[in-house]
Amino acid sequence: MSDKALDSVHHIAITVQDVAKAVEWYTEQFRCDVAYQDDTWAMVQFDNLALAFVLPEQHPPHIGYAMPNAEQYGELKPHRDGTRSVYTSDPFGNVVEMMDDQSI
Amino acid sequence: MSDKALDSVHHIAITVQDVAKAVEWYTEQFRCDVAYQDDTWAMVQFDNLALAFVLPEQHPPHIGYAMPNAEQYGELKPHRDGTRSVYTSDPFGNVVEMMDDQSI
Repeated sequence: MSDKALDSVHHIAITVQDVAKAVEWYTEQFRCDVAYQDDTWAMVQFDNLALAFVLPEQHPPHIGYAMPNAEQYGELKPHRDGTRSVYTSDPFGNVVEMMDDQSI
Repeated sequence: MSDKALDSVHHIAITVQDVAKAVEWYTEQFRCDVAYQDDTWAMVQFDNLALAFVLPEQHPPHIGYAMPNAEQYGELKPHRDGTRSVYTSDPFGNVVEMMDDQSI
């Protein structure tokens, strides 16, 4: 362990078959705030990061990292919420979203 | 959004086929500290939570939550690191680890 600055996880996206039901279940189990919700995806805010619910046919499950050098992983694409990111994957196929930390 | 206290995500566990290779890749891409590593699993610490690498045949991918009421979800089992938790799942089969926040 060291005293160096560490990178942060911005969000985790998990797949659910019913976004509304997911929001209902998670807000019943956990103290979390609904940050965004429509029929196709939602995001709930926990104390230290956000949890997104996505439909399997629309997005793979992934982890989004706030990075100072996201552009090194490819062209950053803008999203509706103003963030810019690029998707890549680890050597095992786990999807990684590299987010420009200046856009968050 | 509100000012209420929110629950925290303690760790995310993702499956990898090679724990050593996972530690190598993640520590190359990210500023994170190796908190634990053996041949069967590892954990790296980010600024706001930990990321665990587990073998597919040993653990399912899951999210561990630090909870004041984990025992409501079943009998808490002790782990080698001193934490106590119980596994459950959301309505869609995503595995949820409810961790006793007093044991973390």
